Amino acid sequence: MSTIPTPYLLYLGAATDFLGLKTARGLATFAPDKCVGEWRHDECPYSVGLERLTLEQGIAARTLVIGIANPGGRMDARVVADAAAAARAGLNIAAGLHQRLRDEPELAAAAAEVGVRLFDVRDPPAGLPVGNGRPRDGRRLLTVGTDCSVGKMYATLALTAAMQARGHAADFRATGQTGILVAGEGIAIDAVVADFIAGAVETLSPARGDGGWDLIEGQGSLFHPSFAGVSTGLLHGAQADALVLCHEVGRPHLRGLPHYPVPGLAECLDANLRVAQLTSPEVRAVGVCLNTAHLDEPAARAACEAAAAELGLPATDPYRFGAEPIVLEIERCFAA
Amino acid sequence: MSTIPTPYLLYLGAATDFLGLKTARGLATFAPDKCVGEWRHDECPYSVGLERLTLEQGIAARTLVIGIANPGGRMDARVVADAAAAARAGLNIAAGLHQRLRDEPELAAAAAEVGVRLFDVRDPPAGLPVGNGRPRDGRRLLTVGTDCSVGKMYATLALTAAMQARGHAADFRATGQTGILVAGEGIAIDAVVADFIAGAVETLSPARGDGGWDLIEGQGSLFHPSFAGVSTGLLHGAQADALVLCHEVGRPHLRGLPHYPVPGLAECLDANLRVAQLTSPEVRAVGVCLNTAHLDEPAARAACEAAAAELGLPATDPYRFGAEPIVLEIERCFAA
Repeated sequence: MSTIPTPYLLYLGAATDFLGLKTARGLATFAPDKCVGEWRHDECPYSVGLERLTLEQGIAARTLVIGIANPGGRMDARVVADAAAAARAGLNIAAGLHQRLRDEPELAAAAAEVGVRLFDVRDPPAGLPVGNGRPRDGRRLLTVGTDCSVGKMYATLALTAAMQARGHAADFRATGQTGILVAGEGIAIDAVVADFIAGAVETLSPARGDGGWDLIEGQGSLFHPSFAGVSTGLLHGAQADALVLCHEVGRPHLRGLPHYPVPGLAECLDANLRVAQLTSPEVRAVGVCLNTAHLDEPAARAACEAAAAELGLPATDPYRFGAEPIVLEIERCFAA
Repeated sequence: MSTIPTPYLLYLGAATDFLGLKTARGLATFAPDKCVGEWRHDECPYSVGLERLTLEQGIAARTLVIGIANPGGRMDARVVADAAAAARAGLNIAAGLHQRLRDEPELAAAAAEVGVRLFDVRDPPAGLPVGNGRPRDGRRLLTVGTDCSVGKMYATLALTAAMQARGHAADFRATGQTGILVAGEGIAIDAVVADFIAGAVETLSPARGDGGWDLIEGQGSLFHPSFAGVSTGLLHGAQADALVLCHEVGRPHLRGLPHYPVPGLAECLDANLRVAQLTSPEVRAVGVCLNTAHLDEPAARAACEAAAAELGLPATDPYRFGAEPIVLEIERCFAA
């Protein structure tokens, strides 16, 4: 992944689902220096806060990043046509969808003709092992969530930065397409063959002996009927010492599933700890990261206070208020 | 899968792991009429009870089935060489390994040269959806286990036969390579991309309106640190009305993991019911299937009585004592 040429032009296309733009928003937030701007059509009502450019205006970029991540990860015909146009204009193309760029004949032909490359960041590495669950050295933190797209990647990146700022050796371990584009490496866990989920996480975050931490990006939710298998394998493979629960305040139901309510914080954390204990009997919760994007500041602070009181853990919106309270809890719990 | 030509010659090769022969044993037990015999080397101390044949003696078969299923599903060089010899002798080759037959150059070349076919039964169907968790019509039973390879396929096939014998419409839904070879169709759930586990099960066992039952073969165990993600997605996708817990009496530790104990029956059943409730709130346990292969008959009967007393459910070894007690419990619980 470190070979994807930058800077990026972020493609939003005609997207009308705000949550589906998380790849583009993640890059704009955590790697703005790698982005020249955003390319979106008039139908797209959202901006990720970068300069709006046409393809022609964005031609100084080296790579077009398809910044859209729909459930199931498929591209429509217009996305394919736009990507092919960008390829013909000389840009490499990168995407983190289940549907691979290389499997689109028009796109593959355009790339071959011009000599640009197609980067499918969801391709898992070859030769992954099945998990073995054997205790391994080093400290690991995993973010878990009440739902998909609640801010687990944001939280993990913010926690990594806050750990580093306080002098800890700390590495972000990306498990999703956006995180991989931000970090330059990682394994898209939801794209791994099911038998190898836990083994992929053991590979992604191997034993470390330097006293530092791996901060592993969580995926899905144990309470999401589409993706809980991924979350379960991730919990077992991560062998986490510490869990951080992530939640979007006020979300009415699970993403894409109006018939499923969002679980309560305590119920969700309890279930995650129980599953995690299989491979990490001493695992403990060290904090709550709330996504309060839809609240004003007093309401956001009140939500954090309520979560902290409910669970007896530090609670913060890491994007708005910083992740330091959770880092202090980690230091308290895991003093040498 | 129904296009795999029969009869089969079962390949045991030089296998020395009895549990790893479950594909061959399953076929010999449940589809002996489809098998001409077994081909094994002198190093293999086990028989599946069929006539021992050399390749030359087994040439009347239409297809060589690689009856070995190791963790991770890989073939060694000798297996590949033997399969290539069989292909050159005019047999089609079928296998349910993660490592695909078509990816072995020697084998692919031999098959192409002679004009025989390679059947990778673990290939998932194209275009699987993500799970949606929406309630669907029809009755479904899922077998779950304390570990891998405890007899879930055997139990599911025996339960299906017992349901049919008592006049119920009942269909076996295969989720593993052996079951697919026995049934002629199915989806190898552990070979599906992780995001689609639950969706694959929804596809495998769609809504039915005839009052009959789908009996879905379980995989792995919630307590197995390598494969619990598969088991979780299977529980959610199955949307089961009824669970049957499967267990091998006396197994000292999880398969391949001496550092992991086998969970207790009550703990295991409780965890499975809790996970299943996400998509099937009224799910209930209807029985226990014990694998008592290593016990004499009095000890086997005592083990069944002990499990029945512990859980308050009918407990049987379906292979030894039949599955009828559990079918009676299903009739009692789900009377129209």
